[in-house]
Amino acid sequence: MATLTGIAASSGVAIAKAYTLETPDLSYETKKVDDVDTEVNRLHNALTVSKSELEKIKENARLSLGDEHAEIFSAHLLVLSDPELITPMEDKIKNDNVNAEKALDDVASMFIDMFKGMDNEYMRERAADIQDVTKRVMAHLLQVTFPDPALIDEEVVIIAEDLTPSDTAQLNKQFVKGFTTNIGGRTSHSAIMARSLEIPAVVGTKTVTEDVSEGDIVVVDGMDGKVVINPTEDELATYKQKQADFEKQKEIWAQLKDEPTISKDGEHVELVANIGTPDDVVGVLNNGGEGVGLYRTEFLYMGNSDFPTEDQQFEAYSSVLKQMGDKPVVVRTLDIGGDKELSYLDLPKEMNPFLGFRAIRLCLERDDIFRTQLRALLRASVHGNLKIMFPMIATLDEFRAAKAMLLEEKDNLKAQGVEVSDEIEVGIMVEIPATAVIARQFAKEVDFFSIGTNDLIQYTLAADRMNEQVSYLYQPYHPAILNLVNNVIEAAHAEGKWAGMCGEMAGDSIAIPILLGLGLDEFSMSATSILPARTQIKDLSKEELRSYKDDLLSMSTADEVEAFIREKTNQ
Amino acid sequence: MATLTGIAASSGVAIAKAYTLETPDLSYETKKVDDVDTEVNRLHNALTVSKSELEKIKENARLSLGDEHAEIFSAHLLVLSDPELITPMEDKIKNDNVNAEKALDDVASMFIDMFKGMDNEYMRERAADIQDVTKRVMAHLLQVTFPDPALIDEEVVIIAEDLTPSDTAQLNKQFVKGFTTNIGGRTSHSAIMARSLEIPAVVGTKTVTEDVSEGDIVVVDGMDGKVVINPTEDELATYKQKQADFEKQKEIWAQLKDEPTISKDGEHVELVANIGTPDDVVGVLNNGGEGVGLYRTEFLYMGNSDFPTEDQQFEAYSSVLKQMGDKPVVVRTLDIGGDKELSYLDLPKEMNPFLGFRAIRLCLERDDIFRTQLRALLRASVHGNLKIMFPMIATLDEFRAAKAMLLEEKDNLKAQGVEVSDEIEVGIMVEIPATAVIARQFAKEVDFFSIGTNDLIQYTLAADRMNEQVSYLYQPYHPAILNLVNNVIEAAHAEGKWAGMCGEMAGDSIAIPILLGLGLDEFSMSATSILPARTQIKDLSKEELRSYKDDLLSMSTADEVEAFIREKTNQ
Repeated sequence: MATLTGIAASSGVAIAKAYTLETPDLSYETKKVDDVDTEVNRLHNALTVSKSELEKIKENARLSLGDEHAEIFSAHLLVLSDPELITPMEDKIKNDNVNAEKALDDVASMFIDMFKGMDNEYMRERAADIQDVTKRVMAHLLQVTFPDPALIDEEVVIIAEDLTPSDTAQLNKQFVKGFTTNIGGRTSHSAIMARSLEIPAVVGTKTVTEDVSEGDIVVVDGMDGKVVINPTEDELATYKQKQADFEKQKEIWAQLKDEPTISKDGEHVELVANIGTPDDVVGVLNNGGEGVGLYRTEFLYMGNSDFPTEDQQFEAYSSVLKQMGDKPVVVRTLDIGGDKELSYLDLPKEMNPFLGFRAIRLCLERDDIFRTQLRALLRASVHGNLKIMFPMIATLDEFRAAKAMLLEEKDNLKAQGVEVSDEIEVGIMVEIPATAVIARQFAKEVDFFSIGTNDLIQYTLAADRMNEQVSYLYQPYHPAILNLVNNVIEAAHAEGKWAGMCGEMAGDSIAIPILLGLGLDEFSMSATSILPARTQIKDLSKEELRSYKDDLLSMSTADEVEAFIREKTNQ
Repeated sequence: MATLTGIAASSGVAIAKAYTLETPDLSYETKKVDDVDTEVNRLHNALTVSKSELEKIKENARLSLGDEHAEIFSAHLLVLSDPELITPMEDKIKNDNVNAEKALDDVASMFIDMFKGMDNEYMRERAADIQDVTKRVMAHLLQVTFPDPALIDEEVVIIAEDLTPSDTAQLNKQFVKGFTTNIGGRTSHSAIMARSLEIPAVVGTKTVTEDVSEGDIVVVDGMDGKVVINPTEDELATYKQKQADFEKQKEIWAQLKDEPTISKDGEHVELVANIGTPDDVVGVLNNGGEGVGLYRTEFLYMGNSDFPTEDQQFEAYSSVLKQMGDKPVVVRTLDIGGDKELSYLDLPKEMNPFLGFRAIRLCLERDDIFRTQLRALLRASVHGNLKIMFPMIATLDEFRAAKAMLLEEKDNLKAQGVEVSDEIEVGIMVEIPATAVIARQFAKEVDFFSIGTNDLIQYTLAADRMNEQVSYLYQPYHPAILNLVNNVIEAAHAEGKWAGMCGEMAGDSIAIPILLGLGLDEFSMSATSILPARTQIKDLSKEELRSYKDDLLSMSTADEVEAFIREKTNQ
């Protein structure tokens, strides 16, 4: 009957009964208590029960979604044990003779307000963590049931204001056919989770919780961002067909799993995956990845209380290399700092963290941290086809300094009799405009380039893509981006090197034909995008696309580029 | 005897007796008071006296330094009248029965700590303002004398930990021959003031207040960043010679005041000035400026309680245009937002303000503000040689939208019978890498380019130049910057347009030969840099410099570029 439009967050079509995920009533009365010890015990019991629940949720998340997604719960668990939070609650009960509900609420609210008010994304996320956890503890104090998506035992589409990380981690794919929310965007946490779980989702509908009633039948079209409430017979038939087409499409994709990626005119390119942890390799192989184009090593460092040891790192890197066999694995060295903070590394607050002290800038200064990682990588190199890549390189001096450290550590290890591969390629991320502009100079010294478009676009357009007011300037098809990408590819080829791309752009169906025409050698993307991309490339002629190059590079706007490609490739 | 090395902050050589500017002892006793009304009165008296002192200082600063520099004192005066600050002080006296000193200190410290802790440059500056003002009020409460550089009546070199804005504004050039400080950098407030006042200065010596005793003779060499304490006879002779040479140099510069800027091989380029207010025009003409290359219009908006009216703006723009006669005046439209805030314009805090909602981005959305400025400019256009320039342009869509608004307002004015020039050139700042990369596309539609290197460098290198930990990446000679600048100039010339530069780089003695060789048409710099630049260009052959172009553009590092230019131009 009614159709809402939101943001297409995860592909597929879901048709099922609506299940509204509501937050229970957590209002409480302030009470005066005399027996403060009993009250402190009530608080601790609620904390303990919440903790064991969260540990279970974390373990489930790890199994179904991998380490990366489970990390959020480590942060939640830390909140539940944080003396800076718990002690003031105890004090409040003891000194003010109030009940545990009041103490929990007052202290948590104070911290939430404080963190929310800070001009810092990281602190605002901490506020959200505390809020999420506090609700759970409050529910236990009040003995009301907290919504538990894990209990759903019939096929449903979940309707919610938003899904918290703990909600999403508990979704059971067998019963939850899709979900749709009022708020969120394509890169919000729930959207990313939906794509990992391969559950169709539409977010940011603004009003779906108001418009849907319990028992309604809801269609979630995750391709076009539509939500249809109580569809007519005709609509139902249309969407069932679309669902069937999508399933068929997935089967076609699956057939290409063990095929190389060959264009219509017989040219091979490499489709590889971005990963965060050794657990992600299974997904890469299941989706026919020809290698790993970006192994983000930050997850080893985050959600820990100290730096990972050389041996811990060696284990992780070796595990990925062994699982991938002789397929290439490009490991990016530590990209931390700026907005990505480590609790155990004290860095000054920055006014513009995206333009700050991070990645290779930090590693070259804190070379103790960097050399530990380099040694772990060098030791692991004998277990597979390792390539090492330095992030945020802006000058040749930085690349030379980083490579010199790598060679020093290699010599040291060899002197100690440790076996190290002599075939390791050493390249750089091209994510800073300066580096893309003088790619010709860099190409003489690096073994390969991997263009990191997420950062390259935001620096080239001078627009923070996380900032909603300027996110319209995050334009992958801006002719300046195409010119820079072209410059990098031409520079690499002139020196007999290869050029890849590991930003979101590499898996985008408008960008793929452009990049194929510009001669990109390697496309690194989410594992689940590989088979659709391979299917698309099968039908594209590289030679034809190459003939559009000069036209594309001299176009004026991103819209012009997009319209041109849509027309030429019938999209 | 001893020689210290610091940062050369303002050219020239000063030789005089040391005068140490010390902060008086402002420690106080906490006292219990019964007559709280008298105590509140004491506080108000101290506030009132401080206010009238600051008003005098502000007026002096305005006369000797211009509106721009006087603005800092408006902020200080606001602090003294801020009820959010004063009321809690009164309350503290009344409720806690403490003396005014204690109340002032407690409340001010609380605000200072709060603002200092915030991850925001603007708020940290507010903390510094409150600190500066609180000291003055405390001195009056304690009836101790506050250091008053205005009272100096013999020739001295000032020695200080740092100079506050109020200190610098009170310096009398007749007696204060130079100054040197422990802290600060080339772009710190005191350094900028020193250059405006043409007083030799060396900042950031770390230890000068320890090393110098009252009565020592001190040499300040503002060219080489040296401070010599109690020089030997030989040293004294050397520095007196250097001082004489510098004075002679200034005379030679002055002879070129009314000359055009012609290279050794007879090629003309335009040397123009950056200004902030109509008062700055005198300095431009005195220094032989051939025009205004960048009129920053922000000062009209800052330090006010509301937007300037169309008429107020018309007055300011007309005044500059009339004073400059037929010389060109390039006015940049409002570049506000990001880190430049207006008290009366409520903008959300941003995580990366340099990559945020500012300048043309804000003006296109808040077109009421923008159109008021455009109308004022159009009305003023009949009074001189006006060129309008839009800042932070990243896409052709933005330029087209801004220009369309300008043409609409022009039509409206003409329809109302208002006279508007038909000769106004409309150009853009090139300060975003994307725009430099596709300058060829832009050149078809704009009348001119002005390259804003301060921002262009920080975006191209992805490094916040205000962030000390990455300021080493602020590299004007990075080959990528040279390639982008060259691209912009070539694009302009291919379409018969002109290209200028209005960043700090345009006045730099290493950059000038490079830019001349690349064919830059217009160099916009601080007024005081114009004559030295004209002198330098007189001895440079454009044709010779042009022959280095290919070599320079294919160099690998900034150091290589600098060494090459130093060798070729004997610097």
